[in-house]
Amino acid sequence: MPRFFTHTITGDLAQIEGPDASHIALSLRMRHGEELTVCDGEGTDYPGTLEQITPELVTVRLSGSLPSPGEPKIKITLFQALCKGEKMDTIVQKAVELGTTEIVPLLTRRCVARPDQKGFEKKRQRYAKIALEAAKQCGRGIVPQVGELITLDNLLVRMEGFSQTFLFYEQAQRLLGSMKLDGIKKLAVIVGSEGGFDPGEAELLKQAGAQVLSLGSRILRCETAPLAALAAILCLSGEL
Amino acid sequence: MPRFFTHTITGDLAQIEGPDASHIALSLRMRHGEELTVCDGEGTDYPGTLEQITPELVTVRLSGSLPSPGEPKIKITLFQALCKGEKMDTIVQKAVELGTTEIVPLLTRRCVARPDQKGFEKKRQRYAKIALEAAKQCGRGIVPQVGELITLDNLLVRMEGFSQTFLFYEQAQRLLGSMKLDGIKKLAVIVGSEGGFDPGEAELLKQAGAQVLSLGSRILRCETAPLAALAAILCLSGEL
Repeated sequence: MPRFFTHTITGDLAQIEGPDASHIALSLRMRHGEELTVCDGEGTDYPGTLEQITPELVTVRLSGSLPSPGEPKIKITLFQALCKGEKMDTIVQKAVELGTTEIVPLLTRRCVARPDQKGFEKKRQRYAKIALEAAKQCGRGIVPQVGELITLDNLLVRMEGFSQTFLFYEQAQRLLGSMKLDGIKKLAVIVGSEGGFDPGEAELLKQAGAQVLSLGSRILRCETAPLAALAAILCLSGEL
Repeated sequence: MPRFFTHTITGDLAQIEGPDASHIALSLRMRHGEELTVCDGEGTDYPGTLEQITPELVTVRLSGSLPSPGEPKIKITLFQALCKGEKMDTIVQKAVELGTTEIVPLLTRRCVARPDQKGFEKKRQRYAKIALEAAKQCGRGIVPQVGELITLDNLLVRMEGFSQTFLFYEQAQRLLGSMKLDGIKKLAVIVGSEGGFDPGEAELLKQAGAQVLSLGSRILRCETAPLAALAAILCLSGEL
């Protein structure tokens, strides 16, 4: 069944505007009375039927609500050190598909990409668009946000808000698979850029309480590491 | 330490030819007596020191041998239904990084890409090159082979050679994470193309003994699904 995000839900009526309205009216050519699902972007799905359809505005009569089935119970924030080129695009897209709640780009010592604020804001808008498209395509109940670029100091402060933090570090011995994830509701996952983390950074994060973990004995590319970590974490927490 | 594949190992001497020899001599500018690791591509690593160096031929004096640390204990063959465009390139690269032993492209009813034999052979050569580069980059002990394009009938026959077969199917209920992988040495993993499997195909594979599994409630893109499955399987088998 087609599924659309909207923030405009009042009582048992939802409105869909913009490109989605024109998609429903002109591409899908949906008609009065056809069924679709509306999602509020906050984790709730509303099945409904089409009432009014124009390419500018679509109205849906809602028949109930349920927690979005695409939303995992564990809330994961991926702190991803900035990678070069289009790798961040891939990471954002796949992280959303796999079930991440939020993606926060991180500037570390070994990041090759070091955009200024204006340059990063442009990138962030592209990442946000990729996240929205991925969230629609894979059936998420929220649109994961892509945060501002933060430094390690900011990260150390933000870590306090999580039940646990996993740092993936090439020199770690303990495998991710050895961790128990029962009862963890908010997990921070930290992954490096092409050059990984410098030992001083890893030590700071460890002292701040991060569990330092390995993704095994193969050297994963910087865009593969977060996806492998996320897939394994979702699996360990019973979501995959 | 630099690491190179070679098939030419006699006693305690290894020879490296071709682009790797020129890479050692001209790009890395390595000298007599420097240390490197040679891998036979069959799962054994040989530490050694450089003896003779020319851009055409490099000779290495070996000082011992050990099982390649990058080689997982579980042997996984990924039977991947052919996807469109460059998605297969991504799948081959990441599957090698994650630890797959062999990749076998599969032609199913819903494959949009349906190359003829000549067209596929050209693709296969490209996949083989991608697999070799990925194996070098991530430190594998073998170069995973990319097989001929096979049909579902061929697959049903080949399944007999595996201790277990996992079929990932959108309509499955049982999660991958619920499986125990202890003692499984040879695992077949079957993943669909853009359109997934048709119910008749899934039923045939199930009757042939495949465990039909879900990757969770989010709809993964066809290039994301095999990577999520492989990462989770490696995690469940204690390799990640």
